[in-house]
Amino acid sequence: MTQMIGKQSIRFESPVYILNSASIVGKKEGEGPMGELFDVICEDAMFGNQTWEEAESTLQKEAVTMALGKAGMQSAEIRYLFAGDLLGQLIASSFGTASYQIPMFGLYGACSTCGEALSLGAMTIAGGYAAHVLCVTSSHFASAEKQFRFPLEYGNQRPLSATWTVTGAGAFVLSDQKEGKGNAASARITGITTGKIVDFGIKDSMNMGAAMAPAAADTIYHNFMDYNRSPKDYDRIVTGDLGAIGRTLLIDLLKEKGFDIGTVHMDCGIEIFDADKQDTHAGGSGCGCSAVTLSAYILRQIKSGTWKRVLFVPTGALLSTVSFNEGKTVPGIAHAVVLETIS
Amino acid sequence: MTQMIGKQSIRFESPVYILNSASIVGKKEGEGPMGELFDVICEDAMFGNQTWEEAESTLQKEAVTMALGKAGMQSAEIRYLFAGDLLGQLIASSFGTASYQIPMFGLYGACSTCGEALSLGAMTIAGGYAAHVLCVTSSHFASAEKQFRFPLEYGNQRPLSATWTVTGAGAFVLSDQKEGKGNAASARITGITTGKIVDFGIKDSMNMGAAMAPAAADTIYHNFMDYNRSPKDYDRIVTGDLGAIGRTLLIDLLKEKGFDIGTVHMDCGIEIFDADKQDTHAGGSGCGCSAVTLSAYILRQIKSGTWKRVLFVPTGALLSTVSFNEGKTVPGIAHAVVLETIS
Repeated sequence: MTQMIGKQSIRFESPVYILNSASIVGKKEGEGPMGELFDVICEDAMFGNQTWEEAESTLQKEAVTMALGKAGMQSAEIRYLFAGDLLGQLIASSFGTASYQIPMFGLYGACSTCGEALSLGAMTIAGGYAAHVLCVTSSHFASAEKQFRFPLEYGNQRPLSATWTVTGAGAFVLSDQKEGKGNAASARITGITTGKIVDFGIKDSMNMGAAMAPAAADTIYHNFMDYNRSPKDYDRIVTGDLGAIGRTLLIDLLKEKGFDIGTVHMDCGIEIFDADKQDTHAGGSGCGCSAVTLSAYILRQIKSGTWKRVLFVPTGALLSTVSFNEGKTVPGIAHAVVLETIS
Repeated sequence: MTQMIGKQSIRFESPVYILNSASIVGKKEGEGPMGELFDVICEDAMFGNQTWEEAESTLQKEAVTMALGKAGMQSAEIRYLFAGDLLGQLIASSFGTASYQIPMFGLYGACSTCGEALSLGAMTIAGGYAAHVLCVTSSHFASAEKQFRFPLEYGNQRPLSATWTVTGAGAFVLSDQKEGKGNAASARITGITTGKIVDFGIKDSMNMGAAMAPAAADTIYHNFMDYNRSPKDYDRIVTGDLGAIGRTLLIDLLKEKGFDIGTVHMDCGIEIFDADKQDTHAGGSGCGCSAVTLSAYILRQIKSGTWKRVLFVPTGALLSTVSFNEGKTVPGIAHAVVLETIS
């Protein structure tokens, strides 16, 4: 088999399809530019629960239920679940997905986890290990603030470089078939480029875009090298949550390597909020940001054929409060997935 | 392809070998019954660092370096790294493995992560996605106590059901070849059974053996069903860190299902310490516990042919301090890997 291409990419010889997907978001995301595209917008930030963590678990659970429902499938038909979130020890995923009783791989790649989940899910399908797998990732503004930053009650001021963690979850049913029960798949996953940890020595946890941009640049560069492609080969190159500052850095870093992605680049974190009107500063972030944008917006463009080939590159900042408090840097990682229109 | 068997298992049609491995542990583990088998025992619990977290990162780094060295390989020859630990946001792995510059998948399955890493690593090799991958997991007594329990300075008393987190890391080079540079592989991975989250409603975070035993029983039971096997088909069934209480529960739970694994069962947590002499109560635990026991002891027995077929089942308790403090249960998960002598 010659599926390995270049240094860090795979070209799938067996087909892998995103059969269906679902997105659920909070009120603020629903008020943003993509508001009308999400499957569910919930006015209650607690989603009917007692704690922020339970709320995030409910996001995952609902996203999975919806994705299964849209695909006309039962959880017993799913062979593996790839799930992750930003909370310590992945408690949003553990408590959110337990009831489905699907064999489960817990993943952590910070906000890149959606890319990691789709990568491993696609490898699992193309490798003949499953006919159907589910990938789900989530984030919640309040559980993330509690985990990483300040109690909400402080009303702490945020620098302009800070991002706003998206409250949302996206779930994806991957399949070896391009037709489900009554619906055609949204896109084909034709390859992946798996990221390395890239550390430029950034120590400002309130400027994660700068911390992640070098990792995104590295993964995108290697995607170009491994596939012998350039920006013109993609209708869009979509990063996860670099935000306004990270986007500028990414474009500069790739220009230094001889590639101008300015015209095809899009960032989910920039798209999901109207930063001026919604006071979200540099943009949205979180495991849920790229996931809900992929489900609600990007896959629609691919399914309709408006975009023929998209490089989807969720980006993660690898820090914890412990590493930050101990003065460590914030390394980044980015996992790219090649999505194409089904011909 | 018919690699999928039963409900949640894979039988690998393409060969996957554990080419080599390495273990590094702390002083206490070195004084235990397996002391002389570990590759490195470090007297300094800080491993030359300033913080416990850096110490754990160093464990991973050293284990990877040793495993590569024993296999006669450079990091550039490794296509993917599967890494995980117990700390929030996997900081031991992020800071421990960044310098290798290997495309990386971060994993979290609590103390089952070694099984998760070997499962995904083996799927990657057998799927033709890589010739060589590395799997590494770690834990450190002091970073885990800080993460999950009490500051060491409290000198807090521990109930007899509590386990002692192993300070150690194990790294494994997986390959599609059974001969490396000058060395024969230790074992062949012939299959996996991936665990579901199992929640029996246990809420005592100081009795993780009881929380994990139902998950181990479920995974082992499904391994028997999927492969049409029974305990006599394995020379050993090795759980990760159930400890003395969890072991009894596991054996009872499987007896209820009609299988008596009493004579072939072994638990890494029970083996690694002399509980009476070393005051470790129910036994050792942590991502590092099963990893160093596999590298130092189990693989030796398989390579020598003393054990022909072993079911290796690392077990994880899915909790965080947040979930515990919010009164949630402690669900468990267990991932099984079938290891066989190379014929």
